[in-house]
Amino acid sequence: MPYLSSTPLLAVFATVCAVLVIKAQILGAITAANRGRLKQFINEEDATWLGGQHVEADGEQGQRLLRAHRNDLENLLPFFIGGMLYLQSGANSAVGMGYFGLFLAARMLHTFAYMHRKPMLRRNTYTLGWLVTIVMSAHAAGALLLS
Amino acid sequence: MPYLSSTPLLAVFATVCAVLVIKAQILGAITAANRGRLKQFINEEDATWLGGQHVEADGEQGQRLLRAHRNDLENLLPFFIGGMLYLQSGANSAVGMGYFGLFLAARMLHTFAYMHRKPMLRRNTYTLGWLVTIVMSAHAAGALLLS
Amino acid sequence: MPYLSSTPLLAVFATVCAVLVIKAQILGAITAANRGRLKQFINEEDATWLGGQHVEADGEQGQRLLRAHRNDLENLLPFFIGGMLYLQSGANSAVGMGYFGLFLAARMLHTFAYMHRKPMLRRNTYTLGWLVTIVMSAHAAGALLLS
Repeated sequence: MPYLSSTPLLAVFATVCAVLVIKAQILGAITAANRGRLKQFINEEDATWLGGQHVEADGEQGQRLLRAHRNDLENLLPFFIGGMLYLQSGANSAVGMGYFGLFLAARMLHTFAYMHRKPMLRRNTYTLGWLVTIVMSAHAAGALLLS
Repeated sequence: MPYLSSTPLLAVFATVCAVLVIKAQILGAITAANRGRLKQFINEEDATWLGGQHVEADGEQGQRLLRAHRNDLENLLPFFIGGMLYLQSGANSAVGMGYFGLFLAARMLHTFAYMHRKPMLRRNTYTLGWLVTIVMSAHAAGALLLS
Repeated sequence: MPYLSSTPLLAVFATVCAVLVIKAQILGAITAANRGRLKQFINEEDATWLGGQHVEADGEQGQRLLRAHRNDLENLLPFFIGGMLYLQSGANSAVGMGYFGLFLAARMLHTFAYMHRKPMLRRNTYTLGWLVTIVMSAHAAGALLLS
C-alpha cells in the first residue's frame, strides 16, 4: 500500500511529533488543573459549578502556562508542515534526522526553561527551533521544486 | 499514483477533519461578526472605518468565542498530526475509525457545551478528545517504530 | 518510493506552505524583537535579565503583531489540513493551483493590510482566504468520499 511508513526517517518524525504533541497536551491539561487548584475560573459557569471565583484573566502562573502552551503550538504547526514537506521531498535522510532531533531537543528545553524561568536558555532554544523550521522548510521547497 | 486515497479510513479522516476545520472557521467568522454587531473593535482603524468604539479587549461573549476557537485549534492541530501519523502507520483500521469518530463527537459537543455554558459536558468532552489524541499518537508512534 | 513528490501540484503546495510558514515565523520573531526594543517584557525574568520593565501585557504595536501572527496560524492550520486532503483526493490539479495561489495572495495581502492599518483590505483578504479553505476542504472531502 502507498504508505510512507517504510522509511526510518518517517518513524523518527512520527516519534518526535508524538512526543511534542503529548507534551503540548500535557501543558494544556496543567492549565486546566491549575485553574481548579486555585479555584479561579475565566468562565462564569465554572465558578458557579465548582464553587470558585470568576476572574477576568488567569493569574501569573496560569498566564505563563498559556504562553508556554501557545508558544509550543505556534512552533509545532510550522515544524509539522515543514517536516511533512521534507518527507515528501525525498531530500537527504541523515540531514532530516538532524533537523528533527535538533527541533525535539530545542522544544523540550524551551518548556523546561519557560517553567524554570531561565530567560537565556528560553531565548536560545526558541531561536534554535525557529531556525531549524525555516531552514528545513526552505530545503524541502527547494528539493520539491528541483525534483 | 501514490495517494493514500484508496482506503476508507482516509475518507473518514478527511471528512472528520473537513467538518472540524469548517466548524473552527465558522467560530472565527462569528467572532468577527460579533465585533461588527456590537460596534466594538480591538483595531483602532476598524473603529474609525465602521464608526464604532475602540476597545482594549473583546467583551465577555467575544472572549468566550475566542476561547472556544482557540481551544478548537489547540486540539485540532495535535489530532491532525496524530491522525496523519496513524494513517501512515498502517495500524488497525477499525480502531482508527473509532478514534476519529470519538474525536469528532467530542469536539462537536465541546463547542455546544462552550456556547451553552454547560461546564461538566465541556470538561468531559475536552478530556475525551484529549485522551483520544494522546492514545492515538502513542499507538501510531508505536506501530511506526515496530514496523 | 511512495512519495507524492512527482506532481507539480505538490510542489506548488509545498512552496505556498513554506512561504507562509516563514512569514508566520518572521512575525513571531518581530514580536520578540519588538519587546526587546521597547524593553517591556511580559515574563518577569526577562525584565530582570535584560534590564527592562515587567508589564502585564504587550503594548498596542505588540498586541497588533500578536493578533496578526495568531490570525495567520488560525488560518494556516485549516488551509494546510484542507490542502493535504485535497492532494490526497486526487481532485483536479488546475483547480488546486487556483486554490493555493489565491490563498497565498490573500494571506500575504492580509499581513500587509494588518501592518499598514487598512481595514477594508484586511477584511476582504481574510474573507477570501477563509472562503478558499472552506470550498477546498469541502471539495476534497467530496472527492475522497466519492472515490
